[in-house]
Amino acid sequence: MKTVGHLINGQLVEHESCVQDVFNPATGEPSKQVSLATKSTVEEAISCAQAAYPAWRNTPPIKRARIMFRFKSLLEEHAERICKLVGEEHGKVRHDAAGELQRAIENVEFACGIPELLKGEHTKNVAEQIDSWSEFHPLGVVAGITPFNFPVMVPMWMFPLAIACGNTFILKPSERVPSATLYVANLLHEAGLPDGVLNVVNGDKETVDVLLSDKRIKAISFVGSTPIAQSIYTAACLHGKRCQALGGAKNHAVLMPDADIDNAVNQLLGAAFGSSGERCMALSVVVAVGDSVADSLVKKMCNEMQKLKVGAYDDNGNDFGPVISQAHKQKVLGYIDSAEADGATVVVDGRNVSVSGYEKGFFVGATLLDHVTTDMQSYQKEIFGPVMQVVRVQSMEDAITLIDNHEYGNGTCVFTRDGEAARYFSDNIEVGMVGINVPLPVPVAYHSFGGWKHSLFGDLHAYGPDGVKFYTKRKTITQRWPSSGVREGVSFSFPS
Amino acid sequence: MKTVGHLINGQLVEHESCVQDVFNPATGEPSKQVSLATKSTVEEAISCAQAAYPAWRNTPPIKRARIMFRFKSLLEEHAERICKLVGEEHGKVRHDAAGELQRAIENVEFACGIPELLKGEHTKNVAEQIDSWSEFHPLGVVAGITPFNFPVMVPMWMFPLAIACGNTFILKPSERVPSATLYVANLLHEAGLPDGVLNVVNGDKETVDVLLSDKRIKAISFVGSTPIAQSIYTAACLHGKRCQALGGAKNHAVLMPDADIDNAVNQLLGAAFGSSGERCMALSVVVAVGDSVADSLVKKMCNEMQKLKVGAYDDNGNDFGPVISQAHKQKVLGYIDSAEADGATVVVDGRNVSVSGYEKGFFVGATLLDHVTTDMQSYQKEIFGPVMQVVRVQSMEDAITLIDNHEYGNGTCVFTRDGEAARYFSDNIEVGMVGINVPLPVPVAYHSFGGWKHSLFGDLHAYGPDGVKFYTKRKTITQRWPSSGVREGVSFSFPS
Amino acid sequence: MKTVGHLINGQLVEHESCVQDVFNPATGEPSKQVSLATKSTVEEAISCAQAAYPAWRNTPPIKRARIMFRFKSLLEEHAERICKLVGEEHGKVRHDAAGELQRAIENVEFACGIPELLKGEHTKNVAEQIDSWSEFHPLGVVAGITPFNFPVMVPMWMFPLAIACGNTFILKPSERVPSATLYVANLLHEAGLPDGVLNVVNGDKETVDVLLSDKRIKAISFVGSTPIAQSIYTAACLHGKRCQALGGAKNHAVLMPDADIDNAVNQLLGAAFGSSGERCMALSVVVAVGDSVADSLVKKMCNEMQKLKVGAYDDNGNDFGPVISQAHKQKVLGYIDSAEADGATVVVDGRNVSVSGYEKGFFVGATLLDHVTTDMQSYQKEIFGPVMQVVRVQSMEDAITLIDNHEYGNGTCVFTRDGEAARYFSDNIEVGMVGINVPLPVPVAYHSFGGWKHSLFGDLHAYGPDGVKFYTKRKTITQRWPSSGVREGVSFSFPS
Amino acid sequence: MKTVGHLINGQLVEHESCVQDVFNPATGEPSKQVSLATKSTVEEAISCAQAAYPAWRNTPPIKRARIMFRFKSLLEEHAERICKLVGEEHGKVRHDAAGELQRAIENVEFACGIPELLKGEHTKNVAEQIDSWSEFHPLGVVAGITPFNFPVMVPMWMFPLAIACGNTFILKPSERVPSATLYVANLLHEAGLPDGVLNVVNGDKETVDVLLSDKRIKAISFVGSTPIAQSIYTAACLHGKRCQALGGAKNHAVLMPDADIDNAVNQLLGAAFGSSGERCMALSVVVAVGDSVADSLVKKMCNEMQKLKVGAYDDNGNDFGPVISQAHKQKVLGYIDSAEADGATVVVDGRNVSVSGYEKGFFVGATLLDHVTTDMQSYQKEIFGPVMQVVRVQSMEDAITLIDNHEYGNGTCVFTRDGEAARYFSDNIEVGMVGINVPLPVPVAYHSFGGWKHSLFGDLHAYGPDGVKFYTKRKTITQRWPSSGVREGVSFSFPS
Repeated sequence: MKTVGHLINGQLVEHESCVQDVFNPATGEPSKQVSLATKSTVEEAISCAQAAYPAWRNTPPIKRARIMFRFKSLLEEHAERICKLVGEEHGKVRHDAAGELQRAIENVEFACGIPELLKGEHTKNVAEQIDSWSEFHPLGVVAGITPFNFPVMVPMWMFPLAIACGNTFILKPSERVPSATLYVANLLHEAGLPDGVLNVVNGDKETVDVLLSDKRIKAISFVGSTPIAQSIYTAACLHGKRCQALGGAKNHAVLMPDADIDNAVNQLLGAAFGSSGERCMALSVVVAVGDSVADSLVKKMCNEMQKLKVGAYDDNGNDFGPVISQAHKQKVLGYIDSAEADGATVVVDGRNVSVSGYEKGFFVGATLLDHVTTDMQSYQKEIFGPVMQVVRVQSMEDAITLIDNHEYGNGTCVFTRDGEAARYFSDNIEVGMVGINVPLPVPVAYHSFGGWKHSLFGDLHAYGPDGVKFYTKRKTITQRWPSSGVREGVSFSFPS
Repeated sequence: MKTVGHLINGQLVEHESCVQDVFNPATGEPSKQVSLATKSTVEEAISCAQAAYPAWRNTPPIKRARIMFRFKSLLEEHAERICKLVGEEHGKVRHDAAGELQRAIENVEFACGIPELLKGEHTKNVAEQIDSWSEFHPLGVVAGITPFNFPVMVPMWMFPLAIACGNTFILKPSERVPSATLYVANLLHEAGLPDGVLNVVNGDKETVDVLLSDKRIKAISFVGSTPIAQSIYTAACLHGKRCQALGGAKNHAVLMPDADIDNAVNQLLGAAFGSSGERCMALSVVVAVGDSVADSLVKKMCNEMQKLKVGAYDDNGNDFGPVISQAHKQKVLGYIDSAEADGATVVVDGRNVSVSGYEKGFFVGATLLDHVTTDMQSYQKEIFGPVMQVVRVQSMEDAITLIDNHEYGNGTCVFTRDGEAARYFSDNIEVGMVGINVPLPVPVAYHSFGGWKHSLFGDLHAYGPDGVKFYTKRKTITQRWPSSGVREGVSFSFPS
Repeated sequence: MKTVGHLINGQLVEHESCVQDVFNPATGEPSKQVSLATKSTVEEAISCAQAAYPAWRNTPPIKRARIMFRFKSLLEEHAERICKLVGEEHGKVRHDAAGELQRAIENVEFACGIPELLKGEHTKNVAEQIDSWSEFHPLGVVAGITPFNFPVMVPMWMFPLAIACGNTFILKPSERVPSATLYVANLLHEAGLPDGVLNVVNGDKETVDVLLSDKRIKAISFVGSTPIAQSIYTAACLHGKRCQALGGAKNHAVLMPDADIDNAVNQLLGAAFGSSGERCMALSVVVAVGDSVADSLVKKMCNEMQKLKVGAYDDNGNDFGPVISQAHKQKVLGYIDSAEADGATVVVDGRNVSVSGYEKGFFVGATLLDHVTTDMQSYQKEIFGPVMQVVRVQSMEDAITLIDNHEYGNGTCVFTRDGEAARYFSDNIEVGMVGINVPLPVPVAYHSFGGWKHSLFGDLHAYGPDGVKFYTKRKTITQRWPSSGVREGVSFSFPS
Repeated sequence: MKTVGHLINGQLVEHESCVQDVFNPATGEPSKQVSLATKSTVEEAISCAQAAYPAWRNTPPIKRARIMFRFKSLLEEHAERICKLVGEEHGKVRHDAAGELQRAIENVEFACGIPELLKGEHTKNVAEQIDSWSEFHPLGVVAGITPFNFPVMVPMWMFPLAIACGNTFILKPSERVPSATLYVANLLHEAGLPDGVLNVVNGDKETVDVLLSDKRIKAISFVGSTPIAQSIYTAACLHGKRCQALGGAKNHAVLMPDADIDNAVNQLLGAAFGSSGERCMALSVVVAVGDSVADSLVKKMCNEMQKLKVGAYDDNGNDFGPVISQAHKQKVLGYIDSAEADGATVVVDGRNVSVSGYEKGFFVGATLLDHVTTDMQSYQKEIFGPVMQVVRVQSMEDAITLIDNHEYGNGTCVFTRDGEAARYFSDNIEVGMVGINVPLPVPVAYHSFGGWKHSLFGDLHAYGPDGVKFYTKRKTITQRWPSSGVREGVSFSFPS
C-alpha cells in the first residue's frame, strides 16, 4: 500500500515514522497509509521554512504574486486529478469537489492582488517636515492546521495568502485526507515557489504540539471543532503566537411567511445535504415562523428528498457521498436516534441507506427531523452529517432569540421578500455571516470568513482583507531629515 | 483627606471599600485617598455598561461622533485644570502634562471621524444578482486598564475610539493617579454621553480580576509592564476575550557617523529625560557607531545635561519632575548602582539630587552612563527613570543585531543623513515603531501605536486604524432577492 | 441701505463698484445692496489667495483640521444669526434654514478628518529595494461659484474641504443672497484661518469670467442650472482648469403598489414643497405604478396639502416661504398654466395664494398636478417651485424607461417594501443618487453628492471622498537609495 | 502587400476604405498597409460595443477578472510573436519590446484584482435605521486613442482596466504600428472575451473625430503630443465626455554633488537613449548642480556612449533601434542642428550614424549636448529622439526653478544620497512623477501614471487606482425600510 509522506524544502520525503491508514469512505477500506511526522521531522520543516524566510520576505510582492498566477493556471489544468484525490479519501462527489476547488482557486486569485493589498498608509507632514507611514511586514514562519472536510479549500484559505504576504508556511493537513493537499502543495512548487517556503507535514496531535510550542512559529491558523479550536487558541496565546482558530457551527435558516418556499426548499437541499452535511457552513436547522410555513416546508422537503442520490464520489450523478469514517457514521446515527427518543419526528430517515456495490461504505442518507426543540442534544450539538432539523417558532423575534442562545454564531440565513425583515434580522442577529435568501453565505475570497461566539477564536477573520491583516504586522515609520544637507551646502558654497 | 471614588452610570460614587493613599510625588506626602472597588462595585459598573449598550450601539455613528466633538472642546477649555491634576499625582511638569493632554485630544479628534472609519466594503454582483458587504459591529462592553505614567493620554488611546465604535466601556486607571482620569471621564458626560456608556472604577488587582473573568466583558486593552501584560493577555484569551496588552520597552537610538550630532543631542535630552524617563517610548539607550561618535556624544550630552532643571510640576521652568514613588526611586537608583558596579562609567550622576523645598520628593537627577554593555542588568531591564545609557558598536549591522537581541521591540530611532542607511535600518530592524532622526517615534493618532516582540501581546496595535479593527467585529452579509416580487407581478397583470 | 461687500485677505472690503439690490422675498422689497466686484477686485482676491498658498500648503493637515474643529463650534454658536440672514434674503423658514446649516456643518465635520483622508498609498519593494508611494497635493488657488437656494450649505460643500486639503479659495456666492455666506466665511477667520486662504467676492457674470480665465485659478466648483453648468465646464476645460459643474434636476419618485402610501405621502410633502421646491434634490414628479396607487396618492396628498402653511421665514410654524424673486414666481406660475393648458389636472392650485401682511411677497402655494405626461413642458423642465406632478404608468419597467429618458439624472426614489424591486430599481436606473423609501437621497457628508447625465459635468462628485480627490492632485514618488552609503562605509572601515 | 484591418465584434474585418503604408523603420521600406476606417466602420464598431454593453455590465466582476487571468497567460505564451510585431513596425529592439510587453502585462495583472478594486463604501445607520452605500458603475462604451511609441503597453494601460470595470471599448491605435495591437486584442478574445466588448479600429483623424462626436462614447483616454491632447480634451469636454489626455514631456534629472555618478551614468544611458528616446518618460535633460559634477558627468557619459549599439530590432545585442519615420528623423536632426547653432556643445554626435545593411533605416545615433540653456529650442521642445542635453546650474533651488518653468511636468528625478535633499526636491517640484535615484519613475501598475501641467489634461491619472475611478461613475444609494412588514405582522398576530 502506498504511503503518503511530507513535503519539506521542496522535496517529497518519507521519514521513518509511525503510519496510519487512509480510508476510502465509499468502500470502507483503507487504500493508503500516511506517515505521522515525528518531532524531528516537524522541526526540520520549521528549520527549512526559517531558512527560506529572509529571501522570500525580500522578494517584491509582485514577484510573489506571479507565482500565484501560475499556481492558479496549474490548479485549473490539474483539476480532474485533484478532484479524484479528494473523492478517494474524503468521499465527496466530483461536482462537489470541483466546487471546493473553485473556491480554493478564488483564494489564489485574491492572493494575486497582493501588491494592492499590502499598501501601507503614507502621511506627508504629520508635523512640519515630518512624514509617517505604515508598512505591513510578514510575520516569519506561520502554520496552518486544517480539517478533513475540505482537503483543498481550507488549506488554501491560508497558505496562498500567507505566502503572498511574505511568510513561509508549515501546513499540517488532516491525516485522513492527505493526498490532495500534498498534490496542490506540489503544484505551487511547479509554479516556481522557492524550496522551503511551503512545507507540508502529515501527522497527529504530536505534530500539532510541536507547532504550538516551537518559538520559531509566529502564527497559527486552525479550522476544526470548537473544543480543539479553543485549546489551540489558548496554547498559541500562551506561547506568544498570533492565532485564529475556527471551530464548530450550527447554522440556522429562518423561513418567514412571505418567503418563496419552493425556492427556499431548492436551496436548502444543497445547503443541508451537500457534502453529507460535513461543512462548517452546512445549513442544519430550519426555523420556520408559523406552523403553516413549517408544514408546507416539511411536505415539500420530503418530496424533494426522495430524489436525492447518495453514492460514491466517481459517479457525478450522485448528490452526495459517504461521511468520513465508520466512527463518524455511528455518531451521526446516534444523534438521529437521540432526537427520535427526545420526541422529534423522523420525517425522512436516512439511517438504513445502503449503496449497491459499496455496502461497507460510510453512507448516511438524507434525514429530516421535525418538531425539534432546543433542549434536544441533536439541536445543541453540531452533527456534521446529512441531517436537517426543523424547529417551529411564532415570530422572527423568537427565531432571533433562539439563534442567539446557541453556542455557535457562524452562519445564518433568512428567507423573505421583505426589505425590513431582512435588514432587521441581519442587523440584530449575533452571527458573523448572514445570508438573505442565500443559505450558505460563505463570503467570497475578497471578503473575509468568520463566525462569532464559539465559532471563531481570535480577532481577525480568515482570508480576504482580514487574512492580510492576520498574516502581517504593522511597522510605523516616522521620518524627519535634518536640514543643512548637501542641498543647502551647495547653495552656501556658491559661488567661490 | 479627600477620597477619590468611581464614576458609574454617569454618577460619581464612593462605595464603602478599602482605600489607598495617593501621593504627591513632589512633596513625597499623601494628598488624597482612592477607593479600591470591591467585586460588587465592578459588577455594578459592568451591569450599567451592559444596560447602556443596546441604545448606544444603535445610535448612528455621526451622533456618537458629535459627542466627541464636544468632548474635544471641553478638554481644551479645561486644560489647565487637567494638567494640574496630572501634576499633583503624577509629578510631571505642566508643559509636559500639556503635551500629554494634546496627544490625548488627538485621539478624540480621530474618533470624531468615526463615520468614515466604520465604512464597510460593498460588492455588487459577487455572483449574478447577489451582493455582499461587510459591517463593523461593536463588541459590547469592553474594558481598559491603564498605567500611572500617562493618566490622561493612555486611557484616551482607548475609550474615545471604543465608545465611538459603539461599545460601552469600563476603565480602570492606575490607582496612583486617579483624579485626572476621573475628571476627563466626567467631561465626556458633560459633552452629552449617555449614562453608563463610560464607567470608571478605581481599584487594584481584585478589580482587574473581575474584569478579566466576567463574561460580559468582550475585550480588554491594557498598557503596563510586560509580565503583567503577558498574564493579562493569557487570562483574557482563556476567558474568550479579545485582548491587546502593551508591555515594556527599551528603546535604542542608533547614532551614525554622518549624523548631525548637535541636533541629535538636543533631541535626545527630551527623549531620555522628559517625564523623568517614565515613558514606554523613552529613548534610554544610545548606540553610538564608532568611538569618535560616542566620545563626541558623551561630551556634548554632558554639557547640555548641566542645564537641566528637575523640580515640582507647578514650575514650568523645570524640565522634569520626580518619579512616581519612593519605591520606584530606589529601584532606579539601584539600576544606576548596579551599572556602576558592572563597570559602566557614570558620566553624569543624578543619584544625589535634592530639590529645595521638596526635600522629601521622589526626585532622581538626569544620569548618563557610558560604556554600558549588553550583559549589564541596567541594559537588560526597563529602568523607567531619567537614565541614559551609551553602548558603543562599530557598525550599523552590529547595532541592528544588538537591538534585535533585546527582549523588547517597541520603538527605535536612527540618526543619519543618508537615505540608504535609514531605509536599511527601518526595513530590517525588528521593532514596531521606527524613527528616522525622530527620537520618540510615537505614531500620530491617525496611525497606530504598537511594538513588536515582548512589547505588545495581541494582533492589533493600539488606536488609529488598528484601534477601530480592535473595537469592532466583522459581519459579512450576502444578499439575493428572489424574483417574481411586486415588480414583476405588476408587469404580469398589465394587460387590459 | 446697507451695502454688502467682499471678504479679501481677511478683511471685509467694499470697493467702488456697481451695486445691485438684495430683496427680502417675503416682503418683496429690497433690503440691502450688494457690491458687484470689478475685474481688479477679483484679481486682488486671487493675488491674496496666491500669496497665502505656500504657507497654507505647508501647514500640516492636522493643524488645518483644527481650524475646522473651531469653525464647527462657531457655526453652532451662531446658528440663530446665520438662519436669520438666510431667511431675510432667501426666504426659507427658520427650521428649514437650520436644516441647511446642519448639513453644512456636516461637511465641516468631514473636513476635520482630513489627516485620515489625505493618506497616500505606500508600497515597499515595487522592485528590489525600490519603494513607491503617492501623495495628494493641493491644487493651489481654487474657486467656487454657488447658487441662491442654499446660501450656506452649497458653499460649504466646497470651501471647508478644499481648504482642509491645503488649497486657498475664492468663493463667489449668489449675489441675491450674499450675507449669510459672508457671515460664515468670517467665522472661519475667527476660527483661526490665516488671511487670504478664503476670499469671498460678490459679483455677477463679469466676476465669473475673471475666475474662468485667470491662469492662477486651478479648479472651479460650480452649482447652478444646467445651461450655465455646461458653459462653465466647457470654459474651465478650455482654460486648463479642473472643473465639476452641477446642474439641474427632475427627481422622480416611483410609488409601487406594495408601498406604505401613508408613509410615502408624509415624506413626499416635505420632499416636494420644502424650501418651496427650490432644491436640486426636490422630489417634483411622482410616478405612480397603477391607477389605483395614483388615485389613492392624489387623494391623500390633496388632504395633507390643505394643512400646509406658506409664509415668512421668521414664523417657524410655516412650512415653507416665498420663492426667490418676482420673476421666478412668474416662471413657476407659467409652468402651472402650461400644464393646465396641456391637459394636466390641477388638483391643488397654489397660483393665487396670498399671505396676510406680506401681500407683495413672492409666494406660490403648494400645487398638485395629476395626469401629467412626458410631452408637457412642465414635465420636461425643472420648475424649481412648490409643484408636484403625478405621472401614471403601469409597471416599474415603464417607470424606469420614463426616468431614463429624461435629460437629468440627479436623484430618484422608489417606495416599496420588496427587496427585489428595490434592488432592481437601484441597479438599473440611470441616476446618480437613489433613495429606497427615502425621497431626498442626499448623500451624507462622508459619502459624495452627484447626479448623472446632464445633472453633473465632470469626473468627480461633490464633497465626501470624491471631493478630496477633486481638490488634490496625485504625485507618485519612486525611490531607490544607492548602496555604499555611510552604513557600509563604516562597515568597511571596521578596523579589525 | 498585406493589409491590416479592424477587429469588430470579435471578427477581423477589412472594409473597403483608404489605406496607408506601414513602414519597417529599420529598412526604411513599407512592409504592409493599414486600412483607415471610414465613419461607417467606426459607427459599426460603436454599435457593436453598445450592443455588448448590457450583458457585460451585468457579468460579475470576478468573471470579468477571469478572462483577464487567461489573457495574461496568453500574452506570456505569445510574447515572442508580439515583440516581433512591435519590432517590425516600431523598430524597437527585442529586449526593449519585451520590457514594454512586461509593463503591459502588469496592467492586466492589476485588472485581475477588479473585485477588490470595485468595492464600494457601506455605512450602516447614516441616520436611525437608514443605510447608505456607494457603487461604482461602468460608464458604457469608452474609447482609447494611442500613440506609436508603445503599440502594446499604452493600449493596455487602458482597455484591460476599462473592460474589467464593465465597460465596452473602442481602441484606435496608431496607424503606423497597427499589428501588435491587433494581435493582443485578438488574444483577449481567445481568452474568452465576448464579441463586441473590445473593438479595434485603425484610422486617422477622421476616425478620431467620429469617436469624439458620437454621443454613445462616454469617455476617451488619449496619449500623444500636447497640442493634440489639449484639442482632444477640449473636444471631449464639449461633447459631454469624460476625458484624460496625456501629452508631451521634458523630463529632467538633477544630479547633486553627493550623487554616485557612476551609478547615475549607468542609469541615464538607458533612460535617455532606450527606445531611441521615443518615450514620454525619456530622461532627456540632466541638470548638473555645479560645474565639477557636470564635467565629470559629461566625461563619463561620453565614454559609455561609445559602447552603445544602434541597429535593427531583431538583433538583441543592439541597444536601440531607429526612430519611427524619415520625417521624424529629420526633425530630431534639426533639433541637434539648432542646438549647435544656438551655442550648445555637441559632445557626442549621432547625426551621421549608418547601420550596415540598413542604410535606408531611420537611424539616429546617441547624441550628447552640453552647455544647453533654457532659451534654446532644443531645450524647450520635446525632441523624442536619442538626444541627452546637459544644463548646468549652481544649486538645487536653481534646478527646481528651471524645471518648474518648463511647460511640462511629467517625470523628473534627483540623484543624491541625502535624505533631506531628496525629500525637499520631491515635495516641492511641480512634476507628477518623481524618481529618487530612479531615472524613469514610471509608477507600477497598481499605482497611477500622470504628469502635471501640460503633460496631462484631466482630473484623474492613467491606470492603477485612478484608472478605476476614471472608468467608473459613482452611484450612492440611501435605503430605509418602512416598518410593519411581514416581520412585525407575524409578531402582532401572535397568538390570538
